Amino acid sequence: MRGLDDLKYDDKGLIPAIIQDTDTGQVLMMAYMDKTSLAESIRTGKTHFWSRSRQKYWLKGETSGHTQQIREIFIDCDADTVLIKARQNVAACHEGYRSCFFRKYDDETQEWKIIADRLFDPQDTCGKR
Amino acid sequence: MRGLDDLKYDDKGLIPAIIQDTDTGQVLMMAYMDKTSLAESIRTGKTHFWSRSRQKYWLKGETSGHTQQIREIFIDCDADTVLIKARQNVAACHEGYRSCFFRKYDDETQEWKIIADRLFDPQDTCGKR
Repeated sequence: MRGLDDLKYDDKGLIPAIIQDTDTGQVLMMAYMDKTSLAESIRTGKTHFWSRSRQKYWLKGETSGHTQQIREIFIDCDADTVLIKARQNVAACHEGYRSCFFRKYDDETQEWKIIADRLFDPQDTCGKR
Repeated sequence: MRGLDDLKYDDKGLIPAIIQDTDTGQVLMMAYMDKTSLAESIRTGKTHFWSRSRQKYWLKGETSGHTQQIREIFIDCDADTVLIKARQNVAACHEGYRSCFFRKYDDETQEWKIIADRLFDPQDTCGKR
């Protein structure tokens, strides 16, 4: 996978990956990959990330079953961000929302307001990703 | 703008901001904001970023005129990524493409292939952002 050497990883060897719903265009989440997890994503067709908080590799949907089937992978002009169009199984967010971006800025209150409905109760899956 | 204190900025005070075309859903670019540039974005309705390479604030379209009019701002579940839906004037990419994500991974060649047409020649605007 020669193209993976062309990317600009940060000083921790990571690159941000935006995941977009290939059917609806909804931006679902952003997480970090390194060269290994990006290669594994390409090899398997399912998104794999590096968890900065848990310091380990992570197959999206490993425990929840909410996997992402990769359709297309793009890089930006600076080669330091990846965009992946994928088919999302159930929901991207471990909090039960389809997209992790379920809070919107409200100009009047100057606070973040939940604007989406939960598809499942995260208690039932123990908040597993 | 109280909601801005709820965000998790990284150790350099930055937060990644994904810019999505509010009309088409196309992901246009990703760049970094700090609290000041996010506040300025909200105040003016136009995206402002922090340039890591140039170490300065940057109004998108400052010299090119290719500004982004903000429609909606979202944060993700971990409050460490911003998603902005905006109306893009002309093109987001300083290389002349509508979106910065104009290169796609080709499984056969294992390389990145340009899949979009240029809207303008970057030489004409001196590659200005």
